[in-house]
Amino acid sequence: MSNEGFRVHIALPDTRPSEYEAVIAPGSIGRVPELLPAEASADRYVVVADAEVARLYGESLVRCLEEAGRPASLLAVPSGEPEKTRARWAEVTDALVERGVGRDGCIIALGGGVIGDLAGFVAATYMRGIPLVQVPTTLLAMLDASVGGKTGVDTPLGKNLVGVVRQPALVVMDPLVLRTLPLAELRSGLAEAVKHGAIASAGYLEWIESTGDRLLERQSNALAELIAWSVEIKASFVTRDPEEHGPRKALNFGHTIAHALESLSAYTLPHGHAVAIGMVVEARLGERLGVTREGSAGRLEQVLERLGLPVRIPGSVPAREILARTARDKKVRRARTRYSLIAEIGQSARSEQGDWSIAVDADAVLPVLAEAGADV
Amino acid sequence: MSNEGFRVHIALPDTRPSEYEAVIAPGSIGRVPELLPAEASADRYVVVADAEVARLYGESLVRCLEEAGRPASLLAVPSGEPEKTRARWAEVTDALVERGVGRDGCIIALGGGVIGDLAGFVAATYMRGIPLVQVPTTLLAMLDASVGGKTGVDTPLGKNLVGVVRQPALVVMDPLVLRTLPLAELRSGLAEAVKHGAIASAGYLEWIESTGDRLLERQSNALAELIAWSVEIKASFVTRDPEEHGPRKALNFGHTIAHALESLSAYTLPHGHAVAIGMVVEARLGERLGVTREGSAGRLEQVLERLGLPVRIPGSVPAREILARTARDKKVRRARTRYSLIAEIGQSARSEQGDWSIAVDADAVLPVLAEAGADV
Repeated sequence: MSNEGFRVHIALPDTRPSEYEAVIAPGSIGRVPELLPAEASADRYVVVADAEVARLYGESLVRCLEEAGRPASLLAVPSGEPEKTRARWAEVTDALVERGVGRDGCIIALGGGVIGDLAGFVAATYMRGIPLVQVPTTLLAMLDASVGGKTGVDTPLGKNLVGVVRQPALVVMDPLVLRTLPLAELRSGLAEAVKHGAIASAGYLEWIESTGDRLLERQSNALAELIAWSVEIKASFVTRDPEEHGPRKALNFGHTIAHALESLSAYTLPHGHAVAIGMVVEARLGERLGVTREGSAGRLEQVLERLGLPVRIPGSVPAREILARTARDKKVRRARTRYSLIAEIGQSARSEQGDWSIAVDADAVLPVLAEAGADV
Repeated sequence: MSNEGFRVHIALPDTRPSEYEAVIAPGSIGRVPELLPAEASADRYVVVADAEVARLYGESLVRCLEEAGRPASLLAVPSGEPEKTRARWAEVTDALVERGVGRDGCIIALGGGVIGDLAGFVAATYMRGIPLVQVPTTLLAMLDASVGGKTGVDTPLGKNLVGVVRQPALVVMDPLVLRTLPLAELRSGLAEAVKHGAIASAGYLEWIESTGDRLLERQSNALAELIAWSVEIKASFVTRDPEEHGPRKALNFGHTIAHALESLSAYTLPHGHAVAIGMVVEARLGERLGVTREGSAGRLEQVLERLGLPVRIPGSVPAREILARTARDKKVRRARTRYSLIAEIGQSARSEQGDWSIAVDADAVLPVLAEAGADV
């Protein structure tokens, strides 16, 4: 890592903007004004953040934009998944109109995944799209939401049910902001990093395991390296498939079960915890189907436990209810539920037909859910 | 024209889908199933239309999809600009979820511009985007909304204030459906055709003038030729500039004034009528500024009057109020209002800096508004 930290260049030939930089460096949040590319050059900036993040980092970000001659203001919105609604999207939109923001405006999303999704959807739809800068402040948002351009909100009938794919003009990730992140949320992010290792790089998985203590201690250089490695892996899938028709589906490993568990817990189970359990269940499912090399689930359990992440379904959850929820997942195509599995640690699986997800009968999933602690 | 009518191929290298066909032929509405491209191959189709259009053409379209082995259903929504709201967008979205439409679904927008914009925005945002087929049933929607991929809804604070640019997978335009269109709406569409002539082709403007009677009699071959000609002109601007940063702005000729007049009339003035008046005013403005060749405004008046379109501001509208409304136009950039003018009939104007719109002081606009009948 240079003094400048890491820069990942993300090229997406079929979308606009067609390329952008993800900058990962301690202290980079103070360098946002100088990092802004021409596409994000605006006559005014609106920093969208929740009240807590606005207080911690938003006010100083606005000040540093103003000092650089960039007119900026702060827009505080409530955070938390229940706030990621169409009503909140409409409210933020109306607030921009009231502030006189035109097509020359630019939105800076400062916060976790909820703020990124919500502010991203506002930017994508405001006057048919104004530029967006993502400044994620949770590890999960840095590793996951920062690359791929997914934006959107929930509806009472489903999570992320409305939204668009819209790339940001710039992503700035400062590991120093992770010092104020609760430990459970830090761990939640590490689960996604483990997923990146599981689907794309056994070497990365080993590095995460051996660096686990330094990561949990929030050493900023270790965290910067983790973020850069994960972003590169995620970008390698997304650039091949911006709209998720093929390879990008590999990133759903662990997520079919994870989404069902989150939904059943009414979103009290943190996303990363659900993904940790989901990866173990889906790896075991793959082993049972002969898709995944034997021992992969055990290896994942070992690394996840080392990081303090759960690997078994908590409480008493009926397996049949989990299966019923998987059928409502956006990834469902026709009757059987599709899973994105791994072939072995470091390699995602493809079906015999070359598909990046595999249709599985509910009956085949029951025994692995039981093994993971679900009630049968 | 062959038996197949016209086909315009629209290529947009930087967007998805990156190309699609616009099919223009009498009877083509009955051939929608066979015209569907692979990208619009879906496990179910939802035809979105207002009650009147649903009755006239929607039921038979659903039947013909079903007969071709394509499961389809009809979703009737209220029409009219006041219905193009975020609430209606949310309702249509929820109706799709309730019908179990997944990422394999496809929306067919059957109707005028309001239905196209609304259903298009639903398709663009439903599960981050499902395919859209546009079957416009008004001349204005065929000439204008069918190409360019603009989708969106209004908010109390502005028209088309939220939306995205999203290309359809196919556009089918059947001039036979124009037989049921009210004459005022037919004329409204012809105003946009005149605009296409004004900004891009003096020959087209002459053809419209000499074919005026056949067009007003709704001869389907004449209408098919008109639609194809206009679509080709519009496509030539849009393909160069899908997101309206440059050349596409030329299509706004007449529209800065037109939007102000529509808004002041609370949208009782039909769009095409407003555009007709707006073109005459803006051509005269251009002549006054030395941007537009002398006589252009007179020539436009001649053709528009021949088609039965208005060329003067109706009633008593204060010029200052018109100017105030132009400042709220989405095209406004900083202080002065920007106009997209013509250099002469058949040629859009560019500023000395190469811009496709020109900043004009309000004071320069007052006299031409007075000349067009506004109160001063």
